[in-house]
Amino acid sequence: MKLPDVISSPQSKRIKNAAKLLKRRDRKATGQFLVEGPQAVREALARKGSVVELFITEEAAEEHPSFVSTAKHGRMQCSIVTPEVLTELASTVNSQGVVAVCNALDVELTSVLDKEAQLVVVLAQVRDPGNAGTIIRLADAAGADAVVLTSSSVDVYNDKVVRSTAGSLFHIPVVTGVGLSEVTELARARGLQVLAADANDEAHDLHHPWETGLDLTARTAWVFGNEAWGMSAEDLELCDSSVAVPIYGSAESLNLGTAAGVCIYESARNQRM
Amino acid sequence: MKLPDVISSPQSKRIKNAAKLLKRRDRKATGQFLVEGPQAVREALARKGSVVELFITEEAAEEHPSFVSTAKHGRMQCSIVTPEVLTELASTVNSQGVVAVCNALDVELTSVLDKEAQLVVVLAQVRDPGNAGTIIRLADAAGADAVVLTSSSVDVYNDKVVRSTAGSLFHIPVVTGVGLSEVTELARARGLQVLAADANDEAHDLHHPWETGLDLTARTAWVFGNEAWGMSAEDLELCDSSVAVPIYGSAESLNLGTAAGVCIYESARNQRM
Repeated sequence: MKLPDVISSPQSKRIKNAAKLLKRRDRKATGQFLVEGPQAVREALARKGSVVELFITEEAAEEHPSFVSTAKHGRMQCSIVTPEVLTELASTVNSQGVVAVCNALDVELTSVLDKEAQLVVVLAQVRDPGNAGTIIRLADAAGADAVVLTSSSVDVYNDKVVRSTAGSLFHIPVVTGVGLSEVTELARARGLQVLAADANDEAHDLHHPWETGLDLTARTAWVFGNEAWGMSAEDLELCDSSVAVPIYGSAESLNLGTAAGVCIYESARNQRM
Repeated sequence: MKLPDVISSPQSKRIKNAAKLLKRRDRKATGQFLVEGPQAVREALARKGSVVELFITEEAAEEHPSFVSTAKHGRMQCSIVTPEVLTELASTVNSQGVVAVCNALDVELTSVLDKEAQLVVVLAQVRDPGNAGTIIRLADAAGADAVVLTSSSVDVYNDKVVRSTAGSLFHIPVVTGVGLSEVTELARARGLQVLAADANDEAHDLHHPWETGLDLTARTAWVFGNEAWGMSAEDLELCDSSVAVPIYGSAESLNLGTAAGVCIYESARNQRM
């Protein structure tokens, strides 16, 4: 297969345009974002309509010939670039020779919060990219129907978020830019209970739900708050109940990703019993 | 209370000696390590015999007067340092004016793997400091009896590990520098089953243990492998069974910290039922 021409100048207009997507403002304006590295690019290419343009070094194109052929068959733009040019598009040293420009994937809240939704994960003011990405990945693993990031959360197309999802961003529907009250109201209207992960005085014990009248087999929207200050009183008010992961030892708390994993998997287990 | 004299020179011998502990080699040679920031220092001071020396800025000493008084009552060395001097000892910008020199905390394997041990967490070749610290924190939260890091794992006194434990390093007994076979043999001799967290063909489903003859209520040593390549075939051989966190969606896997959280909490729940 004939390879496309090689872009060797970082001043190339296509490179300059793509590099702008490293900034949130430009991602927002264009509705596009960058994906780095073979694993993530493979997942992006597998999701139809996602990849717009592919930049790949000659070496990476030889190592992953399917990337170039998939791009060509899908009528995506595909450019061979020098390693130096690729660094203009990569936020890490882990791009391993390939970066894709993708269309934003987020969907409407009403399309995921429907009568079928069993398990939905809501991030309220989660700011750390690694946490957000980890939770998207685990929501995908636990078979959740969608992840919702409220408007004050981290940008889901931030390169660190994308990387931490390990491809799950292309598997599970994601909703962004909505207020928490909008989410909790629609969830309730669609028959889901809204549980806040929060260790306050009135919180149910995740491991002893029945004793306190909590039904973890029910359809559920889980809400997780900020990594530093947790859920605000105002946000807690919007939820039906709060639930705490029990602390059996001396730790003060769990980190957000771990706590979310225990909660979401406990719902997934109960819902399948 | 009269404050100690102020060290204002980064060339001070005590500062130079303490700064050496930023290197693994010197930590190993001295059996000491550094702890940064008010939260971690508070936990270190609460564990008797742990803190050897305290370096604190005047501002931090005013904000946390108990640090200086605890150090004095405990006959620890305590020095007021200028913010510039403190940066020589701090690996991050988050020291918030206080760094403590602590004695290594690790204990003998035989002292934790005894007839009473219910739940022990073993890290086999875990290399990422953040993962190791997160798992120590969650083992503490789940009420585990100890954490064991095999000899090829990350140094538990690495500053990133210490920080990620969020104080739990001072709560839960930690064993380092032992071979995995030594751990699994002693665990078995003490009556614990040895479970490897690994998604291979013969793995039990964590959510359906009984169907495949797995008893999660039994006393257990959980073994977690490397973040990138998982458990080696050789290490798997040393365990009694392998157990996989079920993947209900499309993610290929969970990250190590999240998977460990789900496994450890599932044991803690079953053991308390």
